[in-house]
Amino acid sequence: MNKPFTQFYQQIASNRLSEWLNTLPAQLSHWQQHELHGDYKLWQKSLDALPKPHCDTPVEIDLKKGVFVGKQEDLNQGEFKRLENLMKKFKPWRKGPYHIHGLHIDTEWRSDFKWDRLVDHISDLSNRYVLDIGCGSGYHLWRMRGAGAKFVVGIDPTQLFFMQFNAVQHFIQDEKVNLLPLGVEQLPELKAFDTVFAMGVLYHRRSPIDFLYQLKTQLAPGGELVLETLIVDGDENTVLVPGERYAKMRNVWFLPSAQAMCAWLERCGFINVRVVNTDITAFEEQRKTQWIDTESLQDFLDPNDNSKTIEGYPAPKRAIFIANVK
Amino acid sequence: MNKPFTQFYQQIASNRLSEWLNTLPAQLSHWQQHELHGDYKLWQKSLDALPKPHCDTPVEIDLKKGVFVGKQEDLNQGEFKRLENLMKKFKPWRKGPYHIHGLHIDTEWRSDFKWDRLVDHISDLSNRYVLDIGCGSGYHLWRMRGAGAKFVVGIDPTQLFFMQFNAVQHFIQDEKVNLLPLGVEQLPELKAFDTVFAMGVLYHRRSPIDFLYQLKTQLAPGGELVLETLIVDGDENTVLVPGERYAKMRNVWFLPSAQAMCAWLERCGFINVRVVNTDITAFEEQRKTQWIDTESLQDFLDPNDNSKTIEGYPAPKRAIFIANVK
Amino acid sequence: MNKPFTQFYQQIASNRLSEWLNTLPAQLSHWQQHELHGDYKLWQKSLDALPKPHCDTPVEIDLKKGVFVGKQEDLNQGEFKRLENLMKKFKPWRKGPYHIHGLHIDTEWRSDFKWDRLVDHISDLSNRYVLDIGCGSGYHLWRMRGAGAKFVVGIDPTQLFFMQFNAVQHFIQDEKVNLLPLGVEQLPELKAFDTVFAMGVLYHRRSPIDFLYQLKTQLAPGGELVLETLIVDGDENTVLVPGERYAKMRNVWFLPSAQAMCAWLERCGFINVRVVNTDITAFEEQRKTQWIDTESLQDFLDPNDNSKTIEGYPAPKRAIFIANVK
Amino acid sequence: MNKPFTQFYQQIASNRLSEWLNTLPAQLSHWQQHELHGDYKLWQKSLDALPKPHCDTPVEIDLKKGVFVGKQEDLNQGEFKRLENLMKKFKPWRKGPYHIHGLHIDTEWRSDFKWDRLVDHISDLSNRYVLDIGCGSGYHLWRMRGAGAKFVVGIDPTQLFFMQFNAVQHFIQDEKVNLLPLGVEQLPELKAFDTVFAMGVLYHRRSPIDFLYQLKTQLAPGGELVLETLIVDGDENTVLVPGERYAKMRNVWFLPSAQAMCAWLERCGFINVRVVNTDITAFEEQRKTQWIDTESLQDFLDPNDNSKTIEGYPAPKRAIFIANVK
Repeated sequence: MNKPFTQFYQQIASNRLSEWLNTLPAQLSHWQQHELHGDYKLWQKSLDALPKPHCDTPVEIDLKKGVFVGKQEDLNQGEFKRLENLMKKFKPWRKGPYHIHGLHIDTEWRSDFKWDRLVDHISDLSNRYVLDIGCGSGYHLWRMRGAGAKFVVGIDPTQLFFMQFNAVQHFIQDEKVNLLPLGVEQLPELKAFDTVFAMGVLYHRRSPIDFLYQLKTQLAPGGELVLETLIVDGDENTVLVPGERYAKMRNVWFLPSAQAMCAWLERCGFINVRVVNTDITAFEEQRKTQWIDTESLQDFLDPNDNSKTIEGYPAPKRAIFIANVK
Repeated sequence: MNKPFTQFYQQIASNRLSEWLNTLPAQLSHWQQHELHGDYKLWQKSLDALPKPHCDTPVEIDLKKGVFVGKQEDLNQGEFKRLENLMKKFKPWRKGPYHIHGLHIDTEWRSDFKWDRLVDHISDLSNRYVLDIGCGSGYHLWRMRGAGAKFVVGIDPTQLFFMQFNAVQHFIQDEKVNLLPLGVEQLPELKAFDTVFAMGVLYHRRSPIDFLYQLKTQLAPGGELVLETLIVDGDENTVLVPGERYAKMRNVWFLPSAQAMCAWLERCGFINVRVVNTDITAFEEQRKTQWIDTESLQDFLDPNDNSKTIEGYPAPKRAIFIANVK
Repeated sequence: MNKPFTQFYQQIASNRLSEWLNTLPAQLSHWQQHELHGDYKLWQKSLDALPKPHCDTPVEIDLKKGVFVGKQEDLNQGEFKRLENLMKKFKPWRKGPYHIHGLHIDTEWRSDFKWDRLVDHISDLSNRYVLDIGCGSGYHLWRMRGAGAKFVVGIDPTQLFFMQFNAVQHFIQDEKVNLLPLGVEQLPELKAFDTVFAMGVLYHRRSPIDFLYQLKTQLAPGGELVLETLIVDGDENTVLVPGERYAKMRNVWFLPSAQAMCAWLERCGFINVRVVNTDITAFEEQRKTQWIDTESLQDFLDPNDNSKTIEGYPAPKRAIFIANVK
Repeated sequence: MNKPFTQFYQQIASNRLSEWLNTLPAQLSHWQQHELHGDYKLWQKSLDALPKPHCDTPVEIDLKKGVFVGKQEDLNQGEFKRLENLMKKFKPWRKGPYHIHGLHIDTEWRSDFKWDRLVDHISDLSNRYVLDIGCGSGYHLWRMRGAGAKFVVGIDPTQLFFMQFNAVQHFIQDEKVNLLPLGVEQLPELKAFDTVFAMGVLYHRRSPIDFLYQLKTQLAPGGELVLETLIVDGDENTVLVPGERYAKMRNVWFLPSAQAMCAWLERCGFINVRVVNTDITAFEEQRKTQWIDTESLQDFLDPNDNSKTIEGYPAPKRAIFIANVK
């Protein structure tokens, strides 16, 4: 049994997620035995080689204004260099940024911008059980914890993101923040989270309606959904299903209008459905940095008309929806 | 093991559907043991009591112009009365009509109208393996066979429709025409049918995209899909997802425009996609008869404006799409 | 999720049994939902109604010389009466005896006799993980804990025994002693216990060889098996398979000689195999008391010849075997 | 789907074994995809290269006095040579002998001797459904068919034996004789065979009692079991469980006396249990020939005392038991 998960099992055995023990250990055990990425062992080596700061006073951690861990002085020069080199093994870093003992991981996305757009609209996370579906490297998990959440779980099946999360967790060491390498379809109907986030996922699902039901079955009675997804302009009956690619992505399916998205949420039984923010993604928010080696937003748009993707669809526009279950 | 299916197993054991034996007998055996409708035994009794005509010459059957079996003279008066009484036990009769030894089963739907709208557009069914998904009582199965199909399989999970089919099969006795009480999600990827029909089903699916992939995996290379579904007016980005009810039906999900439907088909890898017919359902095609005790189209539309459903949505408009797989 | 098991899951999540989480919660969850005995709720009610002693000083518990809990003075008269009445709801009490706040549960078996016969021959249980397969009400679990075991698990599928154990645990409250309502065939190959006990079970198994392999796969390398079973006189090739009943029991299969049993153990790969005790069951050890309403040994033997069962087989003779795995 | 099994599925779809379709195709499909022996393709090539005799008159086949197929003159010299060479690819040939177009496959065992010992004691096989568990290359399957059986099924998980059977079937072409590459534990409870043979298998089973129950659940009411196994001298309580090896075989478990075997059969609910033959295996019956490259009986016995195996156990003695189910 993987040691990392042991602590998680211990915690859920005695909290309101205990029912999860019926399926989770078997799934993760199967994952460890049969599904590890070809580079997993290499990544694990890098992880194990990360430096440990040795300070007399506890390392300062600020998760309220961002993800800030310690100062550069906590490490000597050799350690800092090792930190930088090892963190670069986990490229591409998509979601962030992270500030770790003076190392600025300047990720492709300024995920803090998204956080700022939503944080004033959601229910206070204090003491809440929170689930983030499709959490990537887990940037928002830290911000949720910083906002007072009692127990934070993120899921994302991409193993590189799991490693990035573990690298950050190495420096923060907070057992109340966890990332599990799972897809949403592997979750039992827990009906146990006070807030469920699903940001940047819905348009990747072949079946958005089934996805909404999956989100619903994770929420405790009265719980709150925070859903962010790509939208298009239009009325309640406007939905774009792009061709093979949208902004060079292959797996994009349904881009509803904000109104259509609201109608879908209501159709699935959510209440208090509202749009709290819409935003056209700017180059400041998604751009190429030294922490990714791939293309970024600039390359995905029509060079002559930034209001269009390279395929001629409307450029990425995102909206944040909030809703409740009864 | 249910006798009705035995003959089917024998046939597929030696035709191109033999791979189906890996899953089908276990499914149908489970169905028989655990999933039979509460009225199943009663229905079976009615079925077993159907009269057998005793003619010197073989009964005349015409499946080309409709479903016509024999003449009233093939039965004596008592037998005819019994036939009528027993057939009424299987109400509501939705799809038809059937003409059996002089009994006219005047079903809610004139499914022959739909057949007439599509028959000139589809590939000649001669010698083809044909699958009809969501076939109801199986009216079109007979027409497909009448059009020359070599082997016809319909699937529909509604057990009353299975009984109606068996009642008709009682008089026709054609082992090349079969209805199995299954949903599409229970089919393995057979890749074996020359033509797959899916009429009046897509708008009942929560995930139309997954449904299109399911259809695709039933088709042999080069095979043809015939898809009929409710559409709305609009451009490629128009999709109606109605509220809780549409024309009093609870389980209606996606009503794309014809253009949107074509885009979806192409996105799923179908080629030669085209609309061959669109049609606003008329009262002549769907109406209350003595063979149903429930409401019909007239009750589903706004009495003051027949261009709208009672909920205010556009009244039912249907389109037929044809496409191929590579 | 059943609260009783939650604590167990928490414990094994962080000890050497953590692999068990892959299967155990799913099994016990199924058990709770689908396999509960018809009287389970009634029993649970009796359990919940057991008195709680309210002493200033902690209740004295002695598990070294027997199972002794507190004194009669810890309860008032009404409470004592309630204790007695409720404990009798769990009749028949087969294995014991228990002394609980002055109540002497005088069980059919003097299981302490068996303990005394084996205790000097087994390895010191201090700090060991111990498994008792077919543990009945769990009498020996307490004695194992009293002998220093670090973590004690008993399994027995009989739900009444599970209730009896819970009734005793109500007064002792030791989270290191647990009984799970499972059969041996439900255990994964844990290879984690230092000592495995299997007393009075082998002759109930249709396949003693498979049973020996199951025991072996629970033992950590170098671990010790303590096996007790019915034997017959004879040489290495002597094995009695009785007819439909043996001593009125229906499910008795293989009664080997001591020598044959040793040969079987060696054949299955055990080493250091030895017999440490043989004993003809005396009326003092198994007899009718007021805590059972059924027959006992006296009724199972030939009234005219106590060396024979009522069916004419040799009267019950038991041997204790000790062996190791590599 | 493997063509060889297709015909079998067709047959059982319409006979009393139709229930088998619930599990068999899925098992054999899994077998073909995941369990084929490393040499399977090579063997199949040899099989495909076997000569086809081209006679004007049908080939003469005698399955009554042995397994005799055609005459040497049916093949030309080159074909005969090819036949011999290809058949030797399937060495070792254990059970036989076979006479195929003049080729005498002189197998290690004279299985005809065993047949002669039992044939006068069993019920007439005419028109019976017969199952042979652990049938090896299938020699006795042919003799059962020769004795009038209506439908003969053999099972044996060893794939080389399956190939040997197919090689013989190539020349006989009798669809009523089939060998399936299965172990007994893979059979559903068919309760459909009139006679079940289990010869030379019981002593290889860890659990002879479970094996007897498995045999029982294959028999139709009133059906007959023909069981042959190794026995030892002794009374009802004599059972030899040898050490690691018996006659150099590793997987030998229980050798009961004839009386003990009868008691076990009765204990499992068989009636009319009787021993019809006992026989010490002679060198004439099991010996090295040019059709095996391994050792044979002579090498398994103590060279100084043929009444003992090389390990000092009693030399192989076999008994045939016949019993019925109610």
